[in-house]
This record gives sequence, structure tokens and C-alpha cells, in this order.
Amino acid sequence: MSKRSKSSAIHENEGVSPSDITNTASIQNIKNKRKSQPDSKTLVSDILKGNITALSRAITLIESANPKHQEKANEIINKCLVHANQSVRIGITGVPGVGKSTFIEALGLHLTNMDRKVAVLAVDPSSSLSKGSILGDKTRMEDLVKNDSAFIRPSPSGTSLGGVARKTRETIILCEAAGFDTIIIETVGVGQSETAVHSMVDFFLLLKIAGAGDELQGIKRGIIEMADTIAINKADGDNLKAAKLAKLEFNRALHLYPEKDSKWQPKVVLCSALERHGISDIWEVISSYIEHTKKTDYFESHRREQNKFWLLQTIEERLKSDFFNKPIIKSELNKQLSLIEKGQTTPFMAADYLLQLP
Amino acid sequence: MSKRSKSSAIHENEGVSPSDITNTASIQNIKNKRKSQPDSKTLVSDILKGNITALSRAITLIESANPKHQEKANEIINKCLVHANQSVRIGITGVPGVGKSTFIEALGLHLTNMDRKVAVLAVDPSSSLSKGSILGDKTRMEDLVKNDSAFIRPSPSGTSLGGVARKTRETIILCEAAGFDTIIIETVGVGQSETAVHSMVDFFLLLKIAGAGDELQGIKRGIIEMADTIAINKADGDNLKAAKLAKLEFNRALHLYPEKDSKWQPKVVLCSALERHGISDIWEVISSYIEHTKKTDYFESHRREQNKFWLLQTIEERLKSDFFNKPIIKSELNKQLSLIEKGQTTPFMAADYLLQLP
Repeated sequence: MSKRSKSSAIHENEGVSPSDITNTASIQNIKNKRKSQPDSKTLVSDILKGNITALSRAITLIESANPKHQEKANEIINKCLVHANQSVRIGITGVPGVGKSTFIEALGLHLTNMDRKVAVLAVDPSSSLSKGSILGDKTRMEDLVKNDSAFIRPSPSGTSLGGVARKTRETIILCEAAGFDTIIIETVGVGQSETAVHSMVDFFLLLKIAGAGDELQGIKRGIIEMADTIAINKADGDNLKAAKLAKLEFNRALHLYPEKDSKWQPKVVLCSALERHGISDIWEVISSYIEHTKKTDYFESHRREQNKFWLLQTIEERLKSDFFNKPIIKSELNKQLSLIEKGQTTPFMAADYLLQLP
Repeated sequence: MSKRSKSSAIHENEGVSPSDITNTASIQNIKNKRKSQPDSKTLVSDILKGNITALSRAITLIESANPKHQEKANEIINKCLVHANQSVRIGITGVPGVGKSTFIEALGLHLTNMDRKVAVLAVDPSSSLSKGSILGDKTRMEDLVKNDSAFIRPSPSGTSLGGVARKTRETIILCEAAGFDTIIIETVGVGQSETAVHSMVDFFLLLKIAGAGDELQGIKRGIIEMADTIAINKADGDNLKAAKLAKLEFNRALHLYPEKDSKWQPKVVLCSALERHGISDIWEVISSYIEHTKKTDYFESHRREQNKFWLLQTIEERLKSDFFNKPIIKSELNKQLSLIEKGQTTPFMAADYLLQLP
């Protein structure tokens, strides 16, 4: 692969020795030395030992826009790949106010108590604008942050969902190589981010709260259909009755949906993340889902399909952006749209015309 | 547009006169004369008069794989475009056995009785395989077929949904130019055909029957969310009770969905196409939907969005097929997929590699 072979040249500049300072790369070498950036081999070996500093550094390389960092990141990912895939990947979504952070903290602590290692990531393409709306403020997960078996990383920044998703997918590989056996990926559901998260996890959890007309609001199309389980949070105190009613309604609604490819019948579970009850029930549901899908081989075939999806998706996005960023297309597209609107051409003839432009 | 200017050369060969038979095109001219194919100008003028033979002939040109026919078709479509758009376009879907043909006949007759002109088309990419599973057998709509205000046309054949959809979209234009003010498009819902039909109509109706576990079966994902109305057919005799219950359940389920862009709250209606009751109620629902969306300007903006969708969709499909049909990609894609499966590359690196191939 061209990118990988090119990258070796750069990494040779890193593990620097005095005799190296005879060539033109000497200034760069000194700079590298000053920052004492470990080379990719060292980073990989540290990641495999579960070293969090090395993991964080490598993720920073993944997130960097600098092509040299990206090549180094690719080399690290390549070496980590054989050590990846050994985890359960859980996607969690829900509208703001549903208590996602509290829930993830409760679930994370429950899992670390069971001797699992938990990495919490986020996909939030808007975070660069809203300055880290989710997970940006780690203090919201105070107890989990302090936990040695947990690793929390806010969303990579970026306005393109494709870019953010790619970085997160690559981060999953590194976290798994570092020994994290549970990957939790949070999303607030901006644009198509739920679909992206759904395509990188084994299990997809929709977090909801009952009452206040919530059933009617804020659920984006298709999300209920994606959910492997709906957890109704804040099922405590005065909310309990409404939560039980919501559970009934969702159970009824879920039965109207077609059977999932996994043959799994989605569950509805009550919980209170604040009071930390119902959390173990949810983990039991997740565990039985994993057991079910591993038995039917769906678990593995689903991951294969996801890989294929991301391969095709990345290619399609690039083909489109290459085409629509051509200056002639930028200027002609709007003209064609306006002709369509005036009834002077059809969408198909306009497409034929645009596609034959040089 | 290149296609259009090129096409004039071909049409000059058609309206043939004795003095023409001096040039090299003479044999072609004689052939054309023998088949007495009217030229595009004549066809357009006849279509605009509502002549069904001319309409059928022009649709046959749209459906033809012959590039010359396609150019003639494009010329006809172009001339008809300004006369199109004046109709209500209704999509109807439902699993086999739900009574679609009987329903469409009942609705069609109701509308022709109201002095509307009704064209019934179908989108069924599988029809070339299954030999016309829908609308192929016109005898299933005996009364409507005989009706002078109705025009019934089976699905164009083709295995690619994109091709079938394009032909149907173009046929809509000709039907509207011929004065049909109601276009009904039927689909059985093979693959993505519902999505395609949904993207070419103003109103989308899901036909269902109650009982026999039907709520749990045969509804493909996303279809309920697409529906502007669910009609529960065969709500007669012993079925009536179950149908009423199903209505209740669907109403409850529909309330769990997010608000539609049209701000329209989907309805659930009972009917019996066989006994021809409930049909006028459904037309009233459709009429009030049209009134509602015309008032809010959603009707027009939705059609504009649909045009844009088809333009972009056609371009994307062609970019993809051009890329994936390259011989080198055909051979390298599977190699990359196998490397991904073995954990030797990531989907993103594989995409980068494939995209830089010559």
C-alpha cells in the first residue's frame, strides 16, 4: 500500500542518533528529539502493554491534520490491527437531557467493578463548533475519570461526519490493542451520526426518559429501528409510573417492527443512572445479546459487513467529493438545478449533461 | 445539452417525402415509413391532445434500450416538460395478498367518477424475472382498464432499480402532459423500490391487512415511517374487529414517530376495496393532505427536493458504477476485503489504496 511504504522514510527521522545530524533532515531531527516524541515502534509496544499515555499520544496522531502524523498513525494502526477486535463495542445515543453522561458513568463503574476495562469515546461532528458538547467536560464523569480501568476520550473534532467517524473507528483499534475489552461510543445524534455509530458497534442502546411528551419529541427517524435495546432512564421517584407506562408503549411499538437481521427481539429496560439501579440489568441484556449473536455467528458476520460498509462508504464519499468539488461542476450544478426548476430539463438529463463535462 | 442537439439529426430522417430518397439515409427512411412511426413532433402534439396511442408509443421509446429511441424519447420529454407537474402523484405499497390491485381499481373508479383522469404505473425491478408480477396482468383491473379516463401501464422491465425508476419518472411527465391529473404508482417493495417510489410521489400510502400476525410480518424497515397514511384493507365481515384493533395499534405506533417534515400527522383508515367502502374516505384524506401541503408550500418545495434528489442520485450511481466496473477495481476489491478480514488493513487504508489505482 503506497501510504504505508512512504511512511517508513519519515519514521527513520525519529529514533535519532548523533551521526544522523549530517543530512538535511538534521533540523527536523533535533526538533523531534526536543519534543522527545517516541517513535511508532515504541508507541505500539507501550500501547500493547496498556500504557495510557502512549495510547493518548497515538490517538492524537490519528486526530492530527498533519500528513506526517497521519502516516505515523497509519503505521501504528497497522501494527495494532492483529491485537484488535477483542472487545464488545456498545453505541449509546439519546437526546440532550436524557442523562447520557450519568448513565455511561454508572455503566462504566459497574463494568470496571467486574474487572472489565472500559474505553469511552464519542462521535460528535459538531463538537468543534459547540466546543465539546459531549465528553468535552470530563468532570461530568468524575468517578470514572479517576478509575484506572477506564479511558475517556472526547470526540475528535471535525465538521465532516466521515472524518470524525474514521478517526473514531481507528481509535477503537488502538483502544482494543491497549486491552480495553469494552468500548462505549456515545453520540448526541447530530445529522447522521447515529447511523455512523450504529455502523461501528455490536450493540446499539437508545437512552430515553419518560413523560413530558418525550415519546413524541426528539426521536429522529429510524433510531428506534436501530436500537437493540431502549433504556428508559430516570425511572425513579415520581417518574417511575410514567416510565413503566413508556416501557409498555415501546414494547408494543417494537413489536410492530420487522425482525432484525440479528433475530434479536429488542428489549425495553427501566433504569435510574443517578440511583444506580437497573444498570446491571442492562449489562445482562447486552451480555445475552452478545452471547446470542456469537452463537448464531451474527456477531462476526456483522463486523465483516461493517468493515465492508466502511470501505465502500469511504470510496463513495471520496468519489462524490472529487466530482462535486470540480470547479466546472460547482458552477454548472446550480444552472442545471435552476433549469430543472423551470421545467426546462429533467434530473436525469441534467445528470447526463454534468457527467460528460470534462 | 449535447444529447438534445444530437437528437435532431435522427428525427430529420423521419417525416419522409419522396424528394428525400436521394441521399444515403434513404433505406432508413423507407424502413421508418414502412413502420409508419410518427415523428416526435407529431407524438408530442398527439400526447398533448390526450391521445393514448401516442402516449403508449412514447413510453415504449422511453423503455427502449435502443440509443436512437432514447434520444427521440428525450426530445419528446423535453417538449412535454412545460405541460407536466399538474397532477397529484400517489404512491401505493403493500405486501402481496394485501389487495393492491382491487384497491387501486376501486380508488381509480372512484376518481374517474369524479371526472379525474387516472394513470396507474408500477415500479417493479423484478418484473422482468417474475414476468410482470404487478400490473402485468391487466385483467386484474377489469373495470378500470375499460374506463376511458384511465391509463394503466405495467412496470418497465429492468433489473436495476435506478433504470426502472428513471423510466417511471419520465413516464409520469408524459402522462401529466397527456392530461392525467392523478398518477398512481404501485410497488411491491422489492429491495429499495419503496424508497424510489416514495421519492417520486406527493403522497405515500401503505396498504395493510389486519390479523394473522400481519403486524409482525412483511413490513420492511422504514416503510411505516414513510407512510402518509396507512389503509387497513379487507376491513369487512369477520375481519372488521381485527381491523379496528389494528387501526388502534397503528395509531398508537405512529404517535411514537417524530414529526414529518410536512408537519402532517399520518392517518390510519379502514377500507374494503372489495366492497368498495372506505375508498372515498381515503381520497378525502389524500385531498386534505394535498390542501395542507399546498398551503404550507411544502408541496412545491418537496417536489423541488425530489428533483434534486434524483439529480444527485443519478450522478452518484454513475460515479459508483464507473469506478466499481473498472477491471482493476474488480480484481483488487476482493483482495482488499480479504486483507481487512485477516486484520491486515483497515477499511480506510484499503479505500485509500483502491482510490489511487490508475
